Amino acid sequence: MAAVITLSSDFGSPYPAAMRAVIRQWTATELVDVAHDLPRQHVAESAFWLREVLPYFPPAVHLAVIDPGVGTDRDAIVVRAGAHALIGPDNGVLVPAARRLADRVDVYRIDSRDGAVEGTDRTAWPPRTESATFHGRDVFAPAAARVHEIGVDGLETDDGLTPTGEYESLAFPEPTVSGREATGTVLAVDGFGNAVTNVPGEHVADHFGGAVTVDGRSVPLRRSYAAVEPGQPLLTVGSHGNVELAVNQGRGSDAFGVDTGDQLRLSWGE
Amino acid sequence: MAAVITLSSDFGSPYPAAMRAVIRQWTATELVDVAHDLPRQHVAESAFWLREVLPYFPPAVHLAVIDPGVGTDRDAIVVRAGAHALIGPDNGVLVPAARRLADRVDVYRIDSRDGAVEGTDRTAWPPRTESATFHGRDVFAPAAARVHEIGVDGLETDDGLTPTGEYESLAFPEPTVSGREATGTVLAVDGFGNAVTNVPGEHVADHFGGAVTVDGRSVPLRRSYAAVEPGQPLLTVGSHGNVELAVNQGRGSDAFGVDTGDQLRLSWGE
Amino acid sequence: MAAVITLSSDFGSPYPAAMRAVIRQWTATELVDVAHDLPRQHVAESAFWLREVLPYFPPAVHLAVIDPGVGTDRDAIVVRAGAHALIGPDNGVLVPAARRLADRVDVYRIDSRDGAVEGTDRTAWPPRTESATFHGRDVFAPAAARVHEIGVDGLETDDGLTPTGEYESLAFPEPTVSGREATGTVLAVDGFGNAVTNVPGEHVADHFGGAVTVDGRSVPLRRSYAAVEPGQPLLTVGSHGNVELAVNQGRGSDAFGVDTGDQLRLSWGE
Repeated sequence: MAAVITLSSDFGSPYPAAMRAVIRQWTATELVDVAHDLPRQHVAESAFWLREVLPYFPPAVHLAVIDPGVGTDRDAIVVRAGAHALIGPDNGVLVPAARRLADRVDVYRIDSRDGAVEGTDRTAWPPRTESATFHGRDVFAPAAARVHEIGVDGLETDDGLTPTGEYESLAFPEPTVSGREATGTVLAVDGFGNAVTNVPGEHVADHFGGAVTVDGRSVPLRRSYAAVEPGQPLLTVGSHGNVELAVNQGRGSDAFGVDTGDQLRLSWGE
Repeated sequence: MAAVITLSSDFGSPYPAAMRAVIRQWTATELVDVAHDLPRQHVAESAFWLREVLPYFPPAVHLAVIDPGVGTDRDAIVVRAGAHALIGPDNGVLVPAARRLADRVDVYRIDSRDGAVEGTDRTAWPPRTESATFHGRDVFAPAAARVHEIGVDGLETDDGLTPTGEYESLAFPEPTVSGREATGTVLAVDGFGNAVTNVPGEHVADHFGGAVTVDGRSVPLRRSYAAVEPGQPLLTVGSHGNVELAVNQGRGSDAFGVDTGDQLRLSWGE
Repeated sequence: MAAVITLSSDFGSPYPAAMRAVIRQWTATELVDVAHDLPRQHVAESAFWLREVLPYFPPAVHLAVIDPGVGTDRDAIVVRAGAHALIGPDNGVLVPAARRLADRVDVYRIDSRDGAVEGTDRTAWPPRTESATFHGRDVFAPAAARVHEIGVDGLETDDGLTPTGEYESLAFPEPTVSGREATGTVLAVDGFGNAVTNVPGEHVADHFGGAVTVDGRSVPLRRSYAAVEPGQPLLTVGSHGNVELAVNQGRGSDAFGVDTGDQLRLSWGE
């Protein structure tokens, strides 16, 4: 049984504490906040961050609520990926992390019921949609507690879950790489202003110490930020394994004028 | 005995870690951060958030420090509300949450003493007012650890606490509802920009799918944000059970030009 | 053995969760976030905050990554200070906290190895520098888990650590105090806008209720913020024990036009 429940959302504060509180009504297991400032209502960029962080955990139940469609007829789902389970809205946000965690994923729909819970037993299972605007508290938190309780092997037979083959997928754009050129896309900008592309670092791995041309501008390719002077731009291969646009002690996204979703062309020496 | 101590403040970072550290000198029990970015030195709006979140926890000790009067002669208090205990300054911030947690509340004054603690035993009880500016660390954190240790049944006889019938109350403004009209007040604006009013949702419950007039402007009333197009305003009944001014994937507070404390007039169809 | 591992960084979000995740692969011990919004790439101001908060913890392993030189040849170190261990880059950021924790400090270099870890065993020891940009995840988190495992008494003989007498020190500027005058430096500005100087409060302790002249401007010296009207400036002795420039319910750094590193002259009455 997973020992940890992780929590991710774009809720800011203090709503995540209500999810923690509801889970605490069921279980004393450890709760770990991954982030609650994921890009607000931005499913794809949030999915990127979940894919980069969740696989480092030992087997766990991962609650992740980035849910612009809350209260519509989008499903709430549990995704099994190996010994991990991911819980959230059926809008694709869980899929890239699940696929990195395991080759095979199985998806279950959460059968929530209309109407408030009677009395003080707020965490009935299957969950009740007490509100149409805060399913993090009213649907996903009870689901996380339930999945923690039954374990991934119990998903198949739980009376609040229904196996489904239909769910929203989500794929990041693929780069076009040809010879010594690539056309890539910025998948995310981190808090330091580093712009993470989808171009795998392996393509430029032989050129560290040299330069890469970014949309016509020649930029040093270095292994670390501090290999150029403070304030100077560089390309590096970041912790995600992809080419990253950066500035030593500055913001690469500003220096290169790029944001999530922007395309750029890279070319490198022979 | 409560298994959890929750921590809330307007301290930002890193001061809350000093409260955690002091509590850890006494007890290894679980510490849960509710929020440390509560509206800075805004007692009423912080009290609203505490009321909305704390009641979802199982019985717990709740430390909550929003304390513009730190170092003055305002008291430090413990409030018993059923199996919960709330600890903080006597400025009303604890009262709405306590009254939602239990019908009866009992209040105890924390008898802190002047002067620094001798040696390294920083967490003496009753607490010493080592600083006049950080009672979160020097008074409230030791008090939370102490209350966790003795439990709510030990409050009556603790030598650092004195029962008191006098304490600052705090009540939110009440809406005026008459027929198909209401005059309400914005109690809080959340991180998404949703403006939460004090008008109970039950008054408009029969009008979902229709419209509500807000200060002369007709606005759709919907169960979920995504029931209108992105960028469009709507009224909904939020997770707090009250009428809420919102924009799908936008900020209701901007669209309606309202902030905490503002009044507005609502009317709805027959 | 220390029961707690604390985590501090300037990473923002969500990178700290990857450090937590890696540590969780080794140990279920409690992880406490001190702050992840320490002044970005500002070693001295971050060192100040670590010195102010970490000593309040019972014996612990403290991971602290403010690391503008990540990926260069700066060392990664473990500092033993009494029953505490501090882990981070060798740039001085750990030193003021360590010196406050204990009179004697012993320093060990972490012997990380080049290249990715084989297979899924990401937390091999000694650590591998899988990335040159995220040693928090790839070097310091495994080191924190390892130090927790072996305890401070195991540092001397661990095969991934080498005792070293050479490490970067860091000292805060000292104030010049002469008679009733002092020239001091702002060490940090906190989230409330309080500007914390390096001038010990003891020098003005007899003048509470009177005034202090700050760069030619006479300002009330009070024990608490609320002793002046809201919006009015004051000097106080803050929770750090030093003279602090503040505004009741406002920002002292704005009112006095000062920032970290600025100097100012204080004089007080006879």
